[in-house]
Amino acid sequence: MAIAPLAISIGDPAGIGPELIARIWDMRRADPMPDFACVGSAALMQAAAMKDGIDLPVARISTMAEARDAFGEALPVIDLADVDYTPGRPSEAGASLALAALDRASALAVRGEASAMVTAPIAKAELAKVGFNHPGQTEFVAEACGIPAEDAVMMLAGPSLRVVPLTVHVALAKVPSLLSTELIVRRTAIAARALQSDYGLSSPRIALTGLNPHAGEDGRMGHEEAEIIVPAVRQLQAQGFAVRGPLPADTMFHAAAREKYDLAVCMYHDQALIPLKALDFDQGVNVTLGLPIIRTSPDHGTAFDIAGTGRPSVGPMLAAIRMAGDCAARRHANSYAA
Amino acid sequence: MAIAPLAISIGDPAGIGPELIARIWDMRRADPMPDFACVGSAALMQAAAMKDGIDLPVARISTMAEARDAFGEALPVIDLADVDYTPGRPSEAGASLALAALDRASALAVRGEASAMVTAPIAKAELAKVGFNHPGQTEFVAEACGIPAEDAVMMLAGPSLRVVPLTVHVALAKVPSLLSTELIVRRTAIAARALQSDYGLSSPRIALTGLNPHAGEDGRMGHEEAEIIVPAVRQLQAQGFAVRGPLPADTMFHAAAREKYDLAVCMYHDQALIPLKALDFDQGVNVTLGLPIIRTSPDHGTAFDIAGTGRPSVGPMLAAIRMAGDCAARRHANSYAA
Repeated sequence: MAIAPLAISIGDPAGIGPELIARIWDMRRADPMPDFACVGSAALMQAAAMKDGIDLPVARISTMAEARDAFGEALPVIDLADVDYTPGRPSEAGASLALAALDRASALAVRGEASAMVTAPIAKAELAKVGFNHPGQTEFVAEACGIPAEDAVMMLAGPSLRVVPLTVHVALAKVPSLLSTELIVRRTAIAARALQSDYGLSSPRIALTGLNPHAGEDGRMGHEEAEIIVPAVRQLQAQGFAVRGPLPADTMFHAAAREKYDLAVCMYHDQALIPLKALDFDQGVNVTLGLPIIRTSPDHGTAFDIAGTGRPSVGPMLAAIRMAGDCAARRHANSYAA
Repeated sequence: MAIAPLAISIGDPAGIGPELIARIWDMRRADPMPDFACVGSAALMQAAAMKDGIDLPVARISTMAEARDAFGEALPVIDLADVDYTPGRPSEAGASLALAALDRASALAVRGEASAMVTAPIAKAELAKVGFNHPGQTEFVAEACGIPAEDAVMMLAGPSLRVVPLTVHVALAKVPSLLSTELIVRRTAIAARALQSDYGLSSPRIALTGLNPHAGEDGRMGHEEAEIIVPAVRQLQAQGFAVRGPLPADTMFHAAAREKYDLAVCMYHDQALIPLKALDFDQGVNVTLGLPIIRTSPDHGTAFDIAGTGRPSVGPMLAAIRMAGDCAARRHANSYAA
């Protein structure tokens, strides 16, 4: 049985999602990619494409099975609503569409009708106005999957590096108190299993950073390494995972150091995202690990300021689509091997 | 009047300092560099060079004026003591030599007999055994210059990036309480003035990071930006410095972002050193700004584990020597222009 197409939620239609999806579909022959359907608005996709100089044929579909047949000749669209295309100017109608698209794409992935979902960027503040009360798309998708939000683990992946920040959008002062051995073990194990199932790494090599400079230098600059991180590393090793650390974060990200691991698990946002974006800016894919479905997204926002200009790079969105397709292919192969 | 030679303190003689200095002197014809003298031990330098396959002529000198005449044909050495060369095995005699060399090189620079000083790495734990009670060489040099240690500002500089970490070897949990508007203003202004006097940047463009993810995202993830950093930026701007920030640290270090500033002033160790070492590993120079003298050092330690093997890269030490020479030439030119 062939792999089902991907479902791409349109994101905020006033953001850069529509033009990226249109442009990427238009590249499908030159640049092979997995089949996908856009969950959103057919007329809006055509309007966005036209602004970008693309005459976009669309195929309004009602099931993902139709998407594969259509993909070669037209962009398959699950047409949820007609919304005016006003790039850079978010609206309630647009936010409602973004929310409905996210909801439908999640459902398609959960039911297995889509092999994976890729989410174009939303604007949280806009979505909040139409009743969205999750911190972000990740938590929404986790709930749709019946998974506690804490077990949905964000990984950022670029050509040079994969990173998991164990804490994310919190003040730096709160980071030390949020870290615990249990949290490190739980999230690292989730990430390790996902690298096994979806990334073809039978024994992923995982490096954990320290929290403090020089990983605390034997307690001279902080005790979290000895008290929290070392016990986590030992537990993970006892569970059979190939985990090392805590390592001084500053010497973990040059080329020779990166060759020694498949994933860097970092203690906080900037420790993970500084090296990722320094090395792989504009190529990062945000992946949610630990879900029963595959979900990726480009590592950028709605970029209202450049929406509709044709300037936004397709790089991250295309990378997100390819990664979702690759992960889906591995799960598909595994399910046949099993 | 010609520029005086540089004084290079030998560092811990059981570390990689001696072989690096010998190898770099041996490269002087192929790879032009400023004249320098080694402050340390002549016999030990010859022993280190021999282990590295170099037949090293040395010229025992007593004044820096002799160093320039000697440099073309022999390594000028201010010969402080005879110490056995036992790479990888630090000793009290070696530590005493390292301390005496640091002291003499500082004095030569302070008196203007050396145009700059370059310090090879020491081992703090070894030096402590012979009465060294400073946190590191930087504080020792500051004291020799009559400058408060807080006003000696560490900058790490590589080919891609210059960074100043405002806090350094402290636990991450302590960072928020150590930051103040006064500290940020004082150290950033010191760095800016040094870039003017020693780096030929008439109006250095300085970018300050935020402390929190996304620079706090308007207070949603921390208040230090609004309470501490923004007022510092305003004061610095009012003083005429070209300062921007606080900027989200994760998007400050890709190539296009780096083009927009000459120096990134960061709130803590890893925020500065992760990008520097990810981009410029093994090429970083540690510079002490704010001193009346010029002082650089390679951004690595004694590396006892590989001392005497011929494996250590000369890159950082050679870069430190070149940078010291360049800064000295600029100060020299400025003093004539003034």
